Amino acid sequence: MRIYDIIKKKRDGLSLSKEEIDFFVSGYVKGEIADYQASALCMAIYFKGMSLEETTNLTLAIRNSGEVLDFSGVKGIRADKHSTGGVGDKTSLIVAPIVASLGVKVAKMSGRGLGHTGGTVDKLESIPNFKVDLPKDEFIKIVNEIGVCIVGQSADLAPADKKLYALRDVTATVDSMSLIASSIMGKKLAADDDVIVLDVKTGSGSFMKTDAKSKELAEIMVGIGKNAGKKTVALITDMDIPLGKAIGNALEVNEAVQTLKGNGEKDLLEVCIALAVEMLYLSGKGDRKTCETLVKDSISSGKALKTLKDMIKAQGGDERVVDDETLLPTAKYSRFVKAKSSGYINKVNTEGYGLSALTLGAGRNKVGDKIDYSAGIILNKKTGDKVEKGEIIATLFASDDALFEKAEQILLSSTFISDDKPIKRQLILARIE
Amino acid sequence: MRIYDIIKKKRDGLSLSKEEIDFFVSGYVKGEIADYQASALCMAIYFKGMSLEETTNLTLAIRNSGEVLDFSGVKGIRADKHSTGGVGDKTSLIVAPIVASLGVKVAKMSGRGLGHTGGTVDKLESIPNFKVDLPKDEFIKIVNEIGVCIVGQSADLAPADKKLYALRDVTATVDSMSLIASSIMGKKLAADDDVIVLDVKTGSGSFMKTDAKSKELAEIMVGIGKNAGKKTVALITDMDIPLGKAIGNALEVNEAVQTLKGNGEKDLLEVCIALAVEMLYLSGKGDRKTCETLVKDSISSGKALKTLKDMIKAQGGDERVVDDETLLPTAKYSRFVKAKSSGYINKVNTEGYGLSALTLGAGRNKVGDKIDYSAGIILNKKTGDKVEKGEIIATLFASDDALFEKAEQILLSSTFISDDKPIKRQLILARIE
Repeated sequence: MRIYDIIKKKRDGLSLSKEEIDFFVSGYVKGEIADYQASALCMAIYFKGMSLEETTNLTLAIRNSGEVLDFSGVKGIRADKHSTGGVGDKTSLIVAPIVASLGVKVAKMSGRGLGHTGGTVDKLESIPNFKVDLPKDEFIKIVNEIGVCIVGQSADLAPADKKLYALRDVTATVDSMSLIASSIMGKKLAADDDVIVLDVKTGSGSFMKTDAKSKELAEIMVGIGKNAGKKTVALITDMDIPLGKAIGNALEVNEAVQTLKGNGEKDLLEVCIALAVEMLYLSGKGDRKTCETLVKDSISSGKALKTLKDMIKAQGGDERVVDDETLLPTAKYSRFVKAKSSGYINKVNTEGYGLSALTLGAGRNKVGDKIDYSAGIILNKKTGDKVEKGEIIATLFASDDALFEKAEQILLSSTFISDDKPIKRQLILARIE
Repeated sequence: MRIYDIIKKKRDGLSLSKEEIDFFVSGYVKGEIADYQASALCMAIYFKGMSLEETTNLTLAIRNSGEVLDFSGVKGIRADKHSTGGVGDKTSLIVAPIVASLGVKVAKMSGRGLGHTGGTVDKLESIPNFKVDLPKDEFIKIVNEIGVCIVGQSADLAPADKKLYALRDVTATVDSMSLIASSIMGKKLAADDDVIVLDVKTGSGSFMKTDAKSKELAEIMVGIGKNAGKKTVALITDMDIPLGKAIGNALEVNEAVQTLKGNGEKDLLEVCIALAVEMLYLSGKGDRKTCETLVKDSISSGKALKTLKDMIKAQGGDERVVDDETLLPTAKYSRFVKAKSSGYINKVNTEGYGLSALTLGAGRNKVGDKIDYSAGIILNKKTGDKVEKGEIIATLFASDDALFEKAEQILLSSTFISDDKPIKRQLILARIE
């Protein structure tokens, strides 16, 4: 087998066999296939695409390039959720405890974030002493005892993805559905779950800017999950507006706690309930209606909040943050952002909001950057709200007040106020199974 | 300027500016742009193509990456021809002396061959003591005195092409019209000619297998030549049948001599006259009819033959080969190939004939291989000829008679005999200007 022939075959629009895809991925990881051949192949895949069968084989080859976890020590059904990422997306912190409190195990490995805010693991690390690096037996033990444990991804998770993504990033071959889907699912399938619920974001604050593209990606990922023997469903959810009102690590942890206390923002709660329902439904906890009742009860009874508190404690964190938010990192400075005109907030550029949070120190510009856990934004007004000129629309938090000017400027230029009240967009746009 | 943006721009089907193309080519030659980015860009060019303006800019960037010759020391109009390569193509050995004998200067740099037989420079080296590496002043002196001199390409000719071609060769990005045209013309334009006549071969023995593709390539190359300020014309000529009857280096030199003596094969002569006419016409030697008379006179009068003889002598070669072909390398062994059935030679796979010659030792499998100048094939019968079973259709020559079996087998399997007389194909299919 020669990589030249594989590149030419894909260039000419033909399908690659499982053997050819395995040859490429394993040869590339071993350094037997050159970067310049891998990049030419990625560009050919960009133009010619891959069938679901090819994409599944690529996903499995990526997964198999590293450690594949064995969760047989976990008792009961194991479910996971994965979000394609958005601004102010703290759903995992809410959904995982809910589902775990209802008897479905969540043994979750999460990534660190690059861009506007940290990832789930970074958010959890804003809780004093919270540990995300645990030995495997302790991880399994916590899952069995509490029902949920969230740790960082192991260093040996899908090395093929790390190498391929770094190459795609500098050769303009990131934007290929097959390559995106296999990158996400290659890592996800390295965990040993029975159920996978995907939250595919769409709109200005997401990776996929159009609903059609988001739907296409969701369909491919669900197909891969099913081909790999997992019960898989995807929800397409709106990210044209940031979810909830907090953007920033400690701010989002607190918002998650408030949501589990029954004080959540309506939009955030709706998405969290929908995701939890899917996880429970696929885990066999009854029909969707029953599952929805279970989810609502777990919040109103305080069961889900207790599970979060137990998890924080089990992972070494200061669980008192659940009762006293001042124990979370608090920013030294804050500043109000005021509306420049009166009218409705007609539209926001959610990615701009993320960039504003990044400017305040809430995220990473590059791998290894230090995150300021206390930094971020609270949105006092959101799309559809009526505002008067001079009214506070957001509150910025930072450890250095020199950062406010640029962050405010970005936030204001990402907020469009007009006389027209916007048409309310559905929050959950589609369910792909 | 970032190479990432250039790759993405071409990937998205947009045109690259002269500055962007120069940035890519010069950065790639200097090693500032990685192979993996260059290969991704080549694949994007493969899919999205380039306009004539872009292709011209790429060609000039490739030319400018190395030495650009100054022929101002040559007196008079300078004309060159270039063939895209075919089996048994010895036209340069015939056309160059004809044109030079009529007062147009031919300062020719030719390549070595890879594949079925050697290139023009290899063929000339089959003449005892013939030198193709000459100091520049001696090269110019011979051109001024004899009218023609044919040397090898300088080591510093278009290094961008060498580096790019080597990369394209292992990343399945050779077959792009823009990349092919800029590779050929980038080297050609490094010579300082006034007139360029391109012989674009079409059919089974050529690089371009279809007439449409050959015409497309010819149009691009003529466009580049004109944009670069050269008088440029292309002829599309048939390579579905080997040209003339000799395939192999010394055999082809002898056939060139015989043609200049007036004993040439009809097809070979026709193509040579047409190419010489174009070179003379573009050099201002009169209308095409006048030029054709001049060409025929130069052969019948022996002027062209004398010019070839003078050139061989001036370049250190044994000029007596013109009068005594036994002074050329002669193969130790020969073998007749006989028809397996009766009928017409309906079709031949010209590339197969080339491969048969390569098997006999007439060409190189890889750069640096030694050529057996005496090896090759004489075609006793060609497409359209009637043959009886057992009649000799070809004669093979080699220095090792163990090579005959495979070569004969390839030649026979490339020769299709049937009861149908084939329709005669035109030899010169189009003129592109």
